[in-house]
Amino acid sequence: MTLTNTRTVRIEWGDCDPAGIIFYPRYFEIFDASTAALFERALGLTKFEQLKHFAFAGYPLARTRAKFIRPTRFGDDVTVDSSITFGRASFEVEHRLSLKGVTCVECSETRVWVTRDPATGAIKPQPVPDEVRAKFG
Amino acid sequence: MTLTNTRTVRIEWGDCDPAGIIFYPRYFEIFDASTAALFERALGLTKFEQLKHFAFAGYPLARTRAKFIRPTRFGDDVTVDSSITFGRASFEVEHRLSLKGVTCVECSETRVWVTRDPATGAIKPQPVPDEVRAKFG
Amino acid sequence: MTLTNTRTVRIEWGDCDPAGIIFYPRYFEIFDASTAALFERALGLTKFEQLKHFAFAGYPLARTRAKFIRPTRFGDDVTVDSSITFGRASFEVEHRLSLKGVTCVECSETRVWVTRDPATGAIKPQPVPDEVRAKFG
Amino acid sequence: MTLTNTRTVRIEWGDCDPAGIIFYPRYFEIFDASTAALFERALGLTKFEQLKHFAFAGYPLARTRAKFIRPTRFGDDVTVDSSITFGRASFEVEHRLSLKGVTCVECSETRVWVTRDPATGAIKPQPVPDEVRAKFG
Repeated sequence: MTLTNTRTVRIEWGDCDPAGIIFYPRYFEIFDASTAALFERALGLTKFEQLKHFAFAGYPLARTRAKFIRPTRFGDDVTVDSSITFGRASFEVEHRLSLKGVTCVECSETRVWVTRDPATGAIKPQPVPDEVRAKFG
Repeated sequence: MTLTNTRTVRIEWGDCDPAGIIFYPRYFEIFDASTAALFERALGLTKFEQLKHFAFAGYPLARTRAKFIRPTRFGDDVTVDSSITFGRASFEVEHRLSLKGVTCVECSETRVWVTRDPATGAIKPQPVPDEVRAKFG
Repeated sequence: MTLTNTRTVRIEWGDCDPAGIIFYPRYFEIFDASTAALFERALGLTKFEQLKHFAFAGYPLARTRAKFIRPTRFGDDVTVDSSITFGRASFEVEHRLSLKGVTCVECSETRVWVTRDPATGAIKPQPVPDEVRAKFG
Repeated sequence: MTLTNTRTVRIEWGDCDPAGIIFYPRYFEIFDASTAALFERALGLTKFEQLKHFAFAGYPLARTRAKFIRPTRFGDDVTVDSSITFGRASFEVEHRLSLKGVTCVECSETRVWVTRDPATGAIKPQPVPDEVRAKFG
């Protein structure tokens, strides 16, 4: 059983579209920051510090799947619960975004840990370091 | 067999993150605009004109699934091919984003056609009008 | 002397560009939300509630001026101090964005209070209601 | 007299806010891309290629000033005219955004040419190379 990180996010006027509800790509900005916050909680380092400490180039997405159940709108303070499951060469992050206890969006991400080749600058997948996995308990 | 719309999009500096590649929520902005462009091509109306002509409130997402195969970066002129399949109360849009013929991202959206209740302002799903379906051939 | 609202904002990975620093349009998203937060603090209503209570259509910008003094980057928790000065038909909002007490960005906005014509849907400037001004003390 | 670059940009649904008009930070995304397009036209290189060819780290903003004259909305195909004036250690870019010949936004940017210190990673201003200036005619 790994840790879950919970954060609160205010949906802003500028996140919403002419229908008055959130423009859905903004949810993915929220989820990307929520994954970073989950790692920050587990590792005790901001993403900036993580990149230096572990000498990697980030954890880009391989896949994402999201289900939009109820719309949210500006002024809503939504809750995002995020948890992780590690595979061999990738990991899954599950996000549940809710408003007053009611689920609004469910998202499942598959991410890979990548390093940058010093010679070519190309990024390539690497296993998540054991030191990182261990921190998620 | 329905029509496919193809458009070219320049990936910009501001679409990219510190890894130098596109920040993935930008892809969903591109896909949302690509769905609007597909409808514009079929209907001969911009989305602004569509909303007036058909008296509806948009086609928000119910689900989306995306697979990120190769990264893109600023300066890339990517091609997006978009096509639609209508169900009873919803429709699917498939987007393929490619660079020089090589697929970089595949995305599948499930959307619903919604109208706004004049009294409460709430949005609710409606079948896509036959007049709209017919235009996709 | 009017009130000043102070909020803290985390600069995220997705706010930053390939140079590793914030992509400057993100500052304007932060400032727009900071103006809404200033009004929320003064009025005790979220922007969503403000629009209903005062029957207006928002406070779009007429002008903005910003000076970028030091860059910020992902992982920075910046502080935004926002204050307002009312004119006859418009108002100015000053934002100071700082990191650990050092000013990074100064921004000055001129905004107008607008209402929507029920017949045409067009937006037009209106004097800020006295009830609103009074709340800023 | 330096060259002017002109480009057309479609304002999208997702660029607009609940008032149905463009959310103003999107204009700065448009202007940043317009500055890159001006350099691309003058130099014959995309920004990605520019960074490699001239071994610099970008041209971040020192200041920006914008005047919002008329709103634009989704479905509008706006025109952006961009031109440059070089100073000693910085340069100014003027953008005029118009719809059907009517000016909607005027923006003036002050930017600096920066390089990255290989040892510390810090960015610092440099004079714009003569080779670059000469290309603007």
